[in-house]
Amino acid sequence: MILQINTHQPWRSLKFALILSLIYFGAIGRLSAQKDLSSDSLMIRKIYDNALTAGKIGPNLYHLTSKIGSRISGSANAQKAVEWGKKKMEEIAPDRVYLQEVTVPHWIRGKKEKSFFISKSGKKIPMSVCALGGSIGTGGVLSAQVIEVNSWGELAALENKDVQGKFVFFNRAMDPKEIETFKAYLAVVDQRARGAIEAGKRGAAGALVRSMTLAIDEVPHTGAMSYDPDVKKIPAAALSTKSADVLSHELKRNSDLIYSLEMNCIQLPDVKSYNVIGEIKGSVYPNEFITVGGHIDTWDLSEGASDDGTGFVQTLEVLRLIKNRDQKPERSIRAILYMNEESGAHGALKYAREAKSAAETHIAVMESDAGGFTPRGFRVEGSQEVKEKMKAWKPLFIPYKVAELHSGHRGVDLAPMKDQAKALISLDCDDQRLFDIHHSALDTYDKINIREVELGAAAMASLIALISKHGF
Amino acid sequence: MILQINTHQPWRSLKFALILSLIYFGAIGRLSAQKDLSSDSLMIRKIYDNALTAGKIGPNLYHLTSKIGSRISGSANAQKAVEWGKKKMEEIAPDRVYLQEVTVPHWIRGKKEKSFFISKSGKKIPMSVCALGGSIGTGGVLSAQVIEVNSWGELAALENKDVQGKFVFFNRAMDPKEIETFKAYLAVVDQRARGAIEAGKRGAAGALVRSMTLAIDEVPHTGAMSYDPDVKKIPAAALSTKSADVLSHELKRNSDLIYSLEMNCIQLPDVKSYNVIGEIKGSVYPNEFITVGGHIDTWDLSEGASDDGTGFVQTLEVLRLIKNRDQKPERSIRAILYMNEESGAHGALKYAREAKSAAETHIAVMESDAGGFTPRGFRVEGSQEVKEKMKAWKPLFIPYKVAELHSGHRGVDLAPMKDQAKALISLDCDDQRLFDIHHSALDTYDKINIREVELGAAAMASLIALISKHGF
Repeated sequence: MILQINTHQPWRSLKFALILSLIYFGAIGRLSAQKDLSSDSLMIRKIYDNALTAGKIGPNLYHLTSKIGSRISGSANAQKAVEWGKKKMEEIAPDRVYLQEVTVPHWIRGKKEKSFFISKSGKKIPMSVCALGGSIGTGGVLSAQVIEVNSWGELAALENKDVQGKFVFFNRAMDPKEIETFKAYLAVVDQRARGAIEAGKRGAAGALVRSMTLAIDEVPHTGAMSYDPDVKKIPAAALSTKSADVLSHELKRNSDLIYSLEMNCIQLPDVKSYNVIGEIKGSVYPNEFITVGGHIDTWDLSEGASDDGTGFVQTLEVLRLIKNRDQKPERSIRAILYMNEESGAHGALKYAREAKSAAETHIAVMESDAGGFTPRGFRVEGSQEVKEKMKAWKPLFIPYKVAELHSGHRGVDLAPMKDQAKALISLDCDDQRLFDIHHSALDTYDKINIREVELGAAAMASLIALISKHGF
Repeated sequence: MILQINTHQPWRSLKFALILSLIYFGAIGRLSAQKDLSSDSLMIRKIYDNALTAGKIGPNLYHLTSKIGSRISGSANAQKAVEWGKKKMEEIAPDRVYLQEVTVPHWIRGKKEKSFFISKSGKKIPMSVCALGGSIGTGGVLSAQVIEVNSWGELAALENKDVQGKFVFFNRAMDPKEIETFKAYLAVVDQRARGAIEAGKRGAAGALVRSMTLAIDEVPHTGAMSYDPDVKKIPAAALSTKSADVLSHELKRNSDLIYSLEMNCIQLPDVKSYNVIGEIKGSVYPNEFITVGGHIDTWDLSEGASDDGTGFVQTLEVLRLIKNRDQKPERSIRAILYMNEESGAHGALKYAREAKSAAETHIAVMESDAGGFTPRGFRVEGSQEVKEKMKAWKPLFIPYKVAELHSGHRGVDLAPMKDQAKALISLDCDDQRLFDIHHSALDTYDKINIREVELGAAAMASLIALISKHGF
């Protein structure tokens, strides 16, 4: 490049040269960025083509849900799922497949719950209920009056005599006006998580919680609840939304009604279980890890097709898609089937502890636990630099309709890695159907569209390939 | 505003004043745009809140699919749907509800089809088939050899003797690598539309067409086919994708196999039927019309929950949402339930003819006929000005996750208005599940998520409110 130098104004020429060189190197930067973009785009197209024409999501999800079925932590089925997951990973033949031992709680529902109340006219009105996961049983039939609350403030404002010995009925509903159902869920799930503690503190006999769903039907939805070691444990049950509406309606004219609940659930001794991990060694930076995971365990009311059968089989599929590429990934990839997401995340906690004690560098941890419906993008927690990089990759995901980016991950199994990973990333899916089935008997194989799950696996494998190539 | 004028350089002052005034009016423009944006955003939020908390989509779709059921053009059920749709519109109480008479074809399937071939080993292999809509019957069992083609080029390259008296088997499959299944559908549907004509031209005995779906199963998918008055009519049937694969596999080793088909469908005399129209008069521009529509008729194999039960009830819902606003729309709104989209669009053609002869001004015509799954945005055909306006409104739709904009509408019932409307707009929906059920026995109520349909209705009502307020 020849520049005409004006010798009378050397500073000007210098400035001009500087500007030109900036333009020049800027252009090179852009050209190289464009070249990257085009080779990245081809890389992603290949991953999608493989996922959509040779994917294993369909048969794998069918086997997991129909041949193994529900797989609550500590159960024989959970162990079967561990073994099958390990076998499936071995068939993919990454560099290493191994189990990571973890101790998990073992809660069982026992005989199906019974519940009803006696109406003003003396009629026995049956209620659709299920024990919340981890609840103690009632030890026979527990009968008591009911006090309904729709906020923590309402509970706090009650006098002790209005709570003691009663069921506290947490009836705050998910807000249908919230466009993202996941947000509506997060806004009410505190009732399930802390209901028994807060009601217990006030001397209540039990906690009844409105199911976390927008559907108005007879299907109760379970989920994790917790106790506080300093507060007396009381039984906690979920009511179907229809039952909750019926009870609430009746309470308005009959506030002294007697509600009866029988739950036979018990906490058995802890059980030895496992995370299943498949690893492909990075060709350039073998000591930098990118993980992808879903969880093995489910609740006991269904085969857990959506939660998190889809994340389970997507984890296998991402491993297969990365393994089947023409070249080894630059960074090490770990596919992790986590045990016990639903009731304590002991698997994820174990993984994080092991990673810390081995002083491993994790540049990204990723999870699919958002239902497995049509993927729409990613949720990312990380530095501004990480977010800028994700933003720069956005054009690559637009053709696949998975380019929405949001701040803050939603992976329970990612949280333990918060201080150890540069980026925590959740696959984000269309969530309109999710809470109709979530944690209920309706979470079955027929609700899942295999192609939607394939698209999610392809999206994750593509993002992993990008991170592996470019780093964060 | 006071400007200090430099009297020595009047032109400079003038220029300065001009620039300042440009900035000033630019700012006013921006402020007013911002004010609009914020009042528009409130308007849209109200529409969504109404749709998501007081919507009628659920009970209406249940009635239409479960109480009325399939409603093919010319059938008694189609007439029931006309009457029920009119009644529902009258309940909403717009300024006017009326029927628009239209003559439609009346095709019936008759006794269920039978089909099989004899394998090399002499085994009778049953095939899952259904007549394509509008096909002639076979007049007893039609048995013939089969020649498979996977492109028009392959058919053209065949010698006449290889086609004459045979079934031409159009087996070009939808491409699973196409992310939008709708595009994959549009790339193969020519086989269904023109298969009988092109095979008939070459002297074939019949046309067999692979079902238009990505699912590999035993469910045949029907749909419109056409004849050319100058070409001998031959029967045309759809094969399920599994049957198509079995037949194709067998043909490779047994090209002389004899295929048998029995179809009892017939074309009955045309029938008098109706479009149903509800109209709200515009308060400012009563002579400018915005329409929204879905179609009444379905195929006969199912209750048409998705196609187009969802568009039908969304049309009612948009009318309700616009009617229930605090103020009348500035422009006139027409909700149109079209008759006969599936086999000739005679309803839409009639509407366009009437609009033309009345010299009505249509600034936008909109249709929902994309399956009724989670809405993702709009497809727009119109001037650059129309597209720019839609683009400017995009931020208003981002909070509702329905902000994707594409060029070119997909509404069969919109096409006749091409030269009469400023904008033709289709609601665009997630289409991953659509073709699994489209035009088949699987298109039933249980496949539909009511909330997804509500979101679609709210999106359309919001866009209509914007067009009504700002024009195009």
